[in-house]
Amino acid sequence: MTPYVPPIADFNFLLYDVFGVDEEWPDRSAAIDKELANSILNECGRVAQDVMAPLSSSADREGAKWDDGKVSAPTGFKQAFDVLTEGGWLGTAGNPEFGGQGMPKALTTAVEEMFWGANTNLWLYAALTSGATYCIDAHASNELKARFLPAMYDGRWTGAMALTESHAGTDLGMMRTRAEHLEGGTYAITGTKIFITSGEHDLAENIVHLVLARIEGAPQGTRGISLFLVPKYLVNDQGELGERNGFASGSIEHKMGIRGSATSVINYEGAKGYLIGEANAGLRCMFTMMNYARVSVGVQGLGLSERAYQMASSYAKERLQGRAPTGPVKEQGAADPIIEHPDVRRMLLTQRALTEGSRAFAVFAAVQLDRAEHPDPGVSGVALRYVELLTPIVKAFISDRAMEASLLAQQCFGGHGYIVESEIEQVVRDVRISQIYEGTNGIQALDLLGRKVLQDGGNTLAELVADLRQAELDRSYATKVSEVLDLWLEATEWLRNSAGSNPSIVGAAAVDYLSLAGYAIYAWLWARMSLLDDGSLGKSNLARFYFDQLLPRSEYHANVIKNGSDSVTLPNSDWF
Amino acid sequence: MTPYVPPIADFNFLLYDVFGVDEEWPDRSAAIDKELANSILNECGRVAQDVMAPLSSSADREGAKWDDGKVSAPTGFKQAFDVLTEGGWLGTAGNPEFGGQGMPKALTTAVEEMFWGANTNLWLYAALTSGATYCIDAHASNELKARFLPAMYDGRWTGAMALTESHAGTDLGMMRTRAEHLEGGTYAITGTKIFITSGEHDLAENIVHLVLARIEGAPQGTRGISLFLVPKYLVNDQGELGERNGFASGSIEHKMGIRGSATSVINYEGAKGYLIGEANAGLRCMFTMMNYARVSVGVQGLGLSERAYQMASSYAKERLQGRAPTGPVKEQGAADPIIEHPDVRRMLLTQRALTEGSRAFAVFAAVQLDRAEHPDPGVSGVALRYVELLTPIVKAFISDRAMEASLLAQQCFGGHGYIVESEIEQVVRDVRISQIYEGTNGIQALDLLGRKVLQDGGNTLAELVADLRQAELDRSYATKVSEVLDLWLEATEWLRNSAGSNPSIVGAAAVDYLSLAGYAIYAWLWARMSLLDDGSLGKSNLARFYFDQLLPRSEYHANVIKNGSDSVTLPNSDWF
Repeated sequence: MTPYVPPIADFNFLLYDVFGVDEEWPDRSAAIDKELANSILNECGRVAQDVMAPLSSSADREGAKWDDGKVSAPTGFKQAFDVLTEGGWLGTAGNPEFGGQGMPKALTTAVEEMFWGANTNLWLYAALTSGATYCIDAHASNELKARFLPAMYDGRWTGAMALTESHAGTDLGMMRTRAEHLEGGTYAITGTKIFITSGEHDLAENIVHLVLARIEGAPQGTRGISLFLVPKYLVNDQGELGERNGFASGSIEHKMGIRGSATSVINYEGAKGYLIGEANAGLRCMFTMMNYARVSVGVQGLGLSERAYQMASSYAKERLQGRAPTGPVKEQGAADPIIEHPDVRRMLLTQRALTEGSRAFAVFAAVQLDRAEHPDPGVSGVALRYVELLTPIVKAFISDRAMEASLLAQQCFGGHGYIVESEIEQVVRDVRISQIYEGTNGIQALDLLGRKVLQDGGNTLAELVADLRQAELDRSYATKVSEVLDLWLEATEWLRNSAGSNPSIVGAAAVDYLSLAGYAIYAWLWARMSLLDDGSLGKSNLARFYFDQLLPRSEYHANVIKNGSDSVTLPNSDWF
Repeated sequence: MTPYVPPIADFNFLLYDVFGVDEEWPDRSAAIDKELANSILNECGRVAQDVMAPLSSSADREGAKWDDGKVSAPTGFKQAFDVLTEGGWLGTAGNPEFGGQGMPKALTTAVEEMFWGANTNLWLYAALTSGATYCIDAHASNELKARFLPAMYDGRWTGAMALTESHAGTDLGMMRTRAEHLEGGTYAITGTKIFITSGEHDLAENIVHLVLARIEGAPQGTRGISLFLVPKYLVNDQGELGERNGFASGSIEHKMGIRGSATSVINYEGAKGYLIGEANAGLRCMFTMMNYARVSVGVQGLGLSERAYQMASSYAKERLQGRAPTGPVKEQGAADPIIEHPDVRRMLLTQRALTEGSRAFAVFAAVQLDRAEHPDPGVSGVALRYVELLTPIVKAFISDRAMEASLLAQQCFGGHGYIVESEIEQVVRDVRISQIYEGTNGIQALDLLGRKVLQDGGNTLAELVADLRQAELDRSYATKVSEVLDLWLEATEWLRNSAGSNPSIVGAAAVDYLSLAGYAIYAWLWARMSLLDDGSLGKSNLARFYFDQLLPRSEYHANVIKNGSDSVTLPNSDWF
């Protein structure tokens, strides 16, 4: 196995040289400085490399197991999970008032990337906990927070999100799970949810489900959905575990990838639940968690594409096959390493320009998440608007590019990449889910174009682009960046003008629009990174490659948008 | 399971309306007319649908099994394979002089597409036989042909190709398997080959390996490689099976997909082999087989992407989620089928425009393969040049587009598409191999740009483009077709001018060049199909979609090519 190497130098470059996050740290309530941040990153890298990565492929082969409602994680996961909880890795971003560490998201994004990259299957048992605690902290009563958050930040208890039902995925308005009033202000939850990541497993003492359900008599559709906290074991006022609550795992899914992660069907049979937030406002509460979860899924893709690149570049330096087109490089050997072949380099550079672009973008988005909590509303207001705008792009564009990069990494292995023992094919299978869950990438695109851009009148986008134009860039690329930002704004304007008379244009153009947005933002990031790297990271190599080989895709997407929706809408549905 | 529906109407449209293949059939030695062709296609479709498709997912779950050198195909494969042999499906394109049916490749390509689409895992036990018989027929002595071809066309014996060694894949010049002279003009073959599809299995009485090896004292590199016929059981002059030959399966591979197909490591330990063709000319002989096998691998991708589309469109018509942007379509229902959402239509139209474009391209290439055997050298000469030029594009562009289409099909299923039981994830895993084996798609691109275009001085390409320009096209698209053909020629000219001083440009630009070529050819095919469809197949819908949404990619690839190779070649190898 190629060892996982934590990309610490790149994190340092992004955090300090590119985004200067340490300048904003004195404003935060929890103490954080570069020294602490470095020790966190280094320790995280060590756990990722030494504890998590070695269990990745065995977890895939063994898979999670279900036996009469009991779910077991793969061999070794319990010991590794204990390392995560002992290190406090589930509570890094948590609220210090309830035992969290209050670290900035710019830092925890780096932590998450390393854990996703080293072992996505294992980190899935922990990652949902972050989203769940984020939601509880934002919307639950202080009593519920005090009862549940400390043990979740500790990792003694983990979190799960129960939204989907078999007939209601994207369209949550159709969900049927119901909540009946019990005495003492609690509810009895009954229904069946599917696709519940870590809904049942054997790594933690308790599992805290956040469940969407309809209170009896609630309005139809999305306006009648409430959010409930439903623990596997009931918890008394002293925080002690009591009797088992009324739900169980009916089965776990057999999946293309993330096979070591247990994805349950959960049957709730009058399970006791506590309302979070107001009745019928559950979807809004859930979206607090989803924004965070969506960024995290983008980072999952990023972590895996970094892993894929490391495997592919290592293989390309070792595998001897053919000769460089400019003549033998290793004259004594029977052949040159395939990294000497321009097409292999093209594949590796594509992976790396996309992956390092994605890392910069993830940190950029995390910086906005941090600023959104700034005490000055002038700072937090604009940052929150940027978070809303950027979240669907982070989730979809990073995961799409991660899939592309992982497939290219596999391609570098030739026939060996199709063999399970190479371990690269697992990365491809695992990364695929990041394009699908937490709202498919098509749904992200609709959210971006429909809700975040057009419903907003394009104002936040204009504000962001104006901000981007203020930054100093590598002069070699400044014109191209300006042009692609113009292209993005023009496409927006064209869509605003079309959408009034053509309600189908948003759906038809959304995915190309999101891609155009992504390539425009990465252009800015590459021009900025190229300027700020002192040469030690080779960012100028990647910037040049990005502008030569990848940015031209933006024009393709813009052209497709302007060709309109007729070719999509005209065919009759029966013809398909 | 969505039933597999053979695309018979589309085959008829392509064979007769688009390419008029029946006009060339009177020139052929084996009798063939529309009536016979129709009965072949219909019967093939029935076998694909009723016998093969139902075994596809169980084969993936069960996989092929290895036990101490004995290899078992999945449950049910033996009975289904017997149906294939009884129907004569392994000898459709075979030489009638030795028991083959002599059917035109335009027809057998359609046959292959249906078998690949219905059950790639099963057809892999048969498909290698076609390539092997093709090679034996072209290069072996009459005595070997008479001894081996009839039983192979019958399917009693199957074929296998043994090229790769663990250290020698693309770079066959490094191979070590050796051949020592035995008395009677035969050879003793010793060495280990990997990745041998159907090299060992339990579906046929005998397995005929074509093995590349070095005769003792042969020159180094590719000029010292010879081709040998090495049967699992020796065969006497009466065609009766004798003793077991000296080779065995050392193991089978665990793979990302095509898990029901047994991919063996084969250890040859002094196995008796018969020279095919001249000594040290083995690679040339192998390429006879490879041209055919490469077209077949493209068709494999095509068949699977058709299967993926059928699954996705069927799901999209049934799955209810949300409402159409223009208002409810099924007002009585809780939601509209997702096919009413423009983004789902965009995904389905992309799949279909690519898949039906690929089908047209595969038949176009098969027509050239047929013409290459025409008695008039004026006809066969140009066709053979076209076959050489088109083969790498057929293999790589069709399989790349098939992967893209299959991923989109999976995306249409949302979360359900990641679940094994949906069966769509298997298609994605199975189709992935078509981009890798028979020469990776990167190698196809180098073959196209380096050998088939630049070494040829661009002459065959110019001849082909001039031919394409003669055809009548749908007027709506004629200008765009002319422009993209110009773009292809311009990129070629630019590369010819650059390649003299820059030996790296070919490798750096090859993959984009192949994609540009593919989109140009598909533009011509869509403009032609749009003209010739009477409206019953909806080709005009797909042509419009192709020109609006997919053809703009050609400019992207052309732009990347013209940005040169500096960004690929400048980084130091150690930096990666």
